[in-house]
Amino acid sequence: MGRGGGGAALITLTTDFGLTDAWVGIMKGVIATRAPGVQVVDVSHGIPPQDVLAGALVLRHAVPWFPRGTIHVAVVDPGVGGPRRALCVETDSALLVGPDNGLLSLAASPGSVRRIVELTDERFHVAPRSGTFHGRDVFAPVAAALAMGTDPGALGAARDDLERLTVPAPVRHGSTLEAQVIYVDHFGNLVTNVPGDSVASDRVSISIAGTRIRGIATSYTAAARGALVAVVNSWNLIEIAVRDGSARDHLGVAAGAPITLEGA
Amino acid sequence: MGRGGGGAALITLTTDFGLTDAWVGIMKGVIATRAPGVQVVDVSHGIPPQDVLAGALVLRHAVPWFPRGTIHVAVVDPGVGGPRRALCVETDSALLVGPDNGLLSLAASPGSVRRIVELTDERFHVAPRSGTFHGRDVFAPVAAALAMGTDPGALGAARDDLERLTVPAPVRHGSTLEAQVIYVDHFGNLVTNVPGDSVASDRVSISIAGTRIRGIATSYTAAARGALVAVVNSWNLIEIAVRDGSARDHLGVAAGAPITLEGA
Amino acid sequence: MGRGGGGAALITLTTDFGLTDAWVGIMKGVIATRAPGVQVVDVSHGIPPQDVLAGALVLRHAVPWFPRGTIHVAVVDPGVGGPRRALCVETDSALLVGPDNGLLSLAASPGSVRRIVELTDERFHVAPRSGTFHGRDVFAPVAAALAMGTDPGALGAARDDLERLTVPAPVRHGSTLEAQVIYVDHFGNLVTNVPGDSVASDRVSISIAGTRIRGIATSYTAAARGALVAVVNSWNLIEIAVRDGSARDHLGVAAGAPITLEGA
Repeated sequence: MGRGGGGAALITLTTDFGLTDAWVGIMKGVIATRAPGVQVVDVSHGIPPQDVLAGALVLRHAVPWFPRGTIHVAVVDPGVGGPRRALCVETDSALLVGPDNGLLSLAASPGSVRRIVELTDERFHVAPRSGTFHGRDVFAPVAAALAMGTDPGALGAARDDLERLTVPAPVRHGSTLEAQVIYVDHFGNLVTNVPGDSVASDRVSISIAGTRIRGIATSYTAAARGALVAVVNSWNLIEIAVRDGSARDHLGVAAGAPITLEGA
Repeated sequence: MGRGGGGAALITLTTDFGLTDAWVGIMKGVIATRAPGVQVVDVSHGIPPQDVLAGALVLRHAVPWFPRGTIHVAVVDPGVGGPRRALCVETDSALLVGPDNGLLSLAASPGSVRRIVELTDERFHVAPRSGTFHGRDVFAPVAAALAMGTDPGALGAARDDLERLTVPAPVRHGSTLEAQVIYVDHFGNLVTNVPGDSVASDRVSISIAGTRIRGIATSYTAAARGALVAVVNSWNLIEIAVRDGSARDHLGVAAGAPITLEGA
Repeated sequence: MGRGGGGAALITLTTDFGLTDAWVGIMKGVIATRAPGVQVVDVSHGIPPQDVLAGALVLRHAVPWFPRGTIHVAVVDPGVGGPRRALCVETDSALLVGPDNGLLSLAASPGSVRRIVELTDERFHVAPRSGTFHGRDVFAPVAAALAMGTDPGALGAARDDLERLTVPAPVRHGSTLEAQVIYVDHFGNLVTNVPGDSVASDRVSISIAGTRIRGIATSYTAAARGALVAVVNSWNLIEIAVRDGSARDHLGVAAGAPITLEGA
């Protein structure tokens, strides 16, 4: 995935910085200074603060929709300034840049990883480096260097591994799956850890927060307004929604809530 | 408004997706993949969920400020995956892409519409298409195709009509207008459905939520800090504001609230 | 800092407009119409409404991270439509465009100012100009003109001064500093007005909201999870944080809260 030049480079940003301050804008300033004209796309800056798993899930489901070779910078970094490593991970399809705390791991399946480089060469960083904002001082300038054609290998020392997160998997007992909500989106839709192809859509009965939903629909419109509905969502995971409403508010549940699928 | 090529194409996005998830970022990934280098501008992603009228108003008042030929993608789409049609509407000045639920209609006045195409040709869509996210699977790839020079007519079947929304109009009884708040902005300003040129600014007396405001000022600064003021806003509609404050919080009203103008 | 041409121009935006409406999108539409292809970067649109000091601080700490000659548009403008002047300020490193209410002043230190121009030439504005939205009608089109190579001097009448804001400075009594919180960020970190190099990190004892913190750490990770920690932040100011948490929520304080440093 090394680039020949910066002409068509694309950088994305995924952070928990929010958009009320200028942290994201400053990262873009560093990139604009060091890689003039390179396009930067925001994936999300609404990762809940310090929620590395949510950031890893969002990144994992966003990367496949970007061009091959895109440079994805992710910063959910509660260990900034401490001993955690900073990495560039080269996969079959992308370059991932961020802290080595599991954030990059769901987008970097073991079979897809070509190279892992620790960002040890400080010549690519802002000097002096702050102890609180490596998005500005390490990850943005490294992404700019990659966009300008720097080989990942030049950024530091080769490493054999990266910190890996595990998404909790559903547990099967016969035809019953004990699963959970792993992500709640802006609409209040409840994304579960159950792959869409792991259940028979017409037979399954779903229990969540004392309520029962029968079957998996093909769209939200299968339900009446205000009613609960289960669908296979755009991440190919089973999701609980309320038509024209919020399942989070309707059921009063959050990420981590248990869900049971019978007849699955 | 067909384009000869993608060189100067511009795509805008107006959705109710919010910015906490990656839905908007993923749409931009699809566009970057299929129309590399094309500029994408966010109009708003803060349309209240499923509020098609608010989305239609925002789009209608944004489109005139963009270059002729801009491709405006709008997705407030509670009917996604159901029978509602997906459209490209070509007007005198723009290309509008989105669901056929009224969202596009205020930006496409009847006299300005040149062509309506239903997005029936699935070769321009992501395959397989999800049942929950046509922003990614239909509207973004269609916008990318348009940006790369595809003629709207190639996207599907020609249609004669589109779903139209009606903004409630004020009702006149002699010199009195019975009107309403149709939009509340970030500052808590209350936008009404009364055109700025329909009242005499010095004589009108406005009643809202048990309070009276006299006259239409030329700017917020005509009022003392914390006081109510009526102005003609940047949409050329009469707006109720509080100087350096929020009229929404001050009056405790929301979109739909009635307002009466006497001596109008 | 005048530009020879629009090729590599970069415009940034800093406002209190929020992102729920289309105000920012419309400014970008005006720029795209008048300066096609020019890159626009959001610094922040989350300045608290009408909080000119917060906007001035954010702008002052963002400008140095952008390329020389960047055109920074800032709009926190409670006096819009009133008698306040509109300015372009040329400094050693940037062009600043916005209302003359102090918003630009912290980014334009007296020694760095080369030229101040009042935006009196209406040929560069949208006509007719609204009384409520000069972001669209004055500042965006002026920024577009600058990006296309217009000399700042052409925009209006030369002026000698601009409105200046004062950030409250800490007061020293012997080895004690009486200081305050001047900004609270998305994470709930409390930024103070104490420069990082003005205290000895190992000896200082900090009192805030009845709590005491000893020493200045080099990163958040020096504290246990949930514990208070003082660091020198990326603005080179002393900041009070809670590791993996929010100091704002933990201490219940806001901008303006007093803080005392003993042994400083």
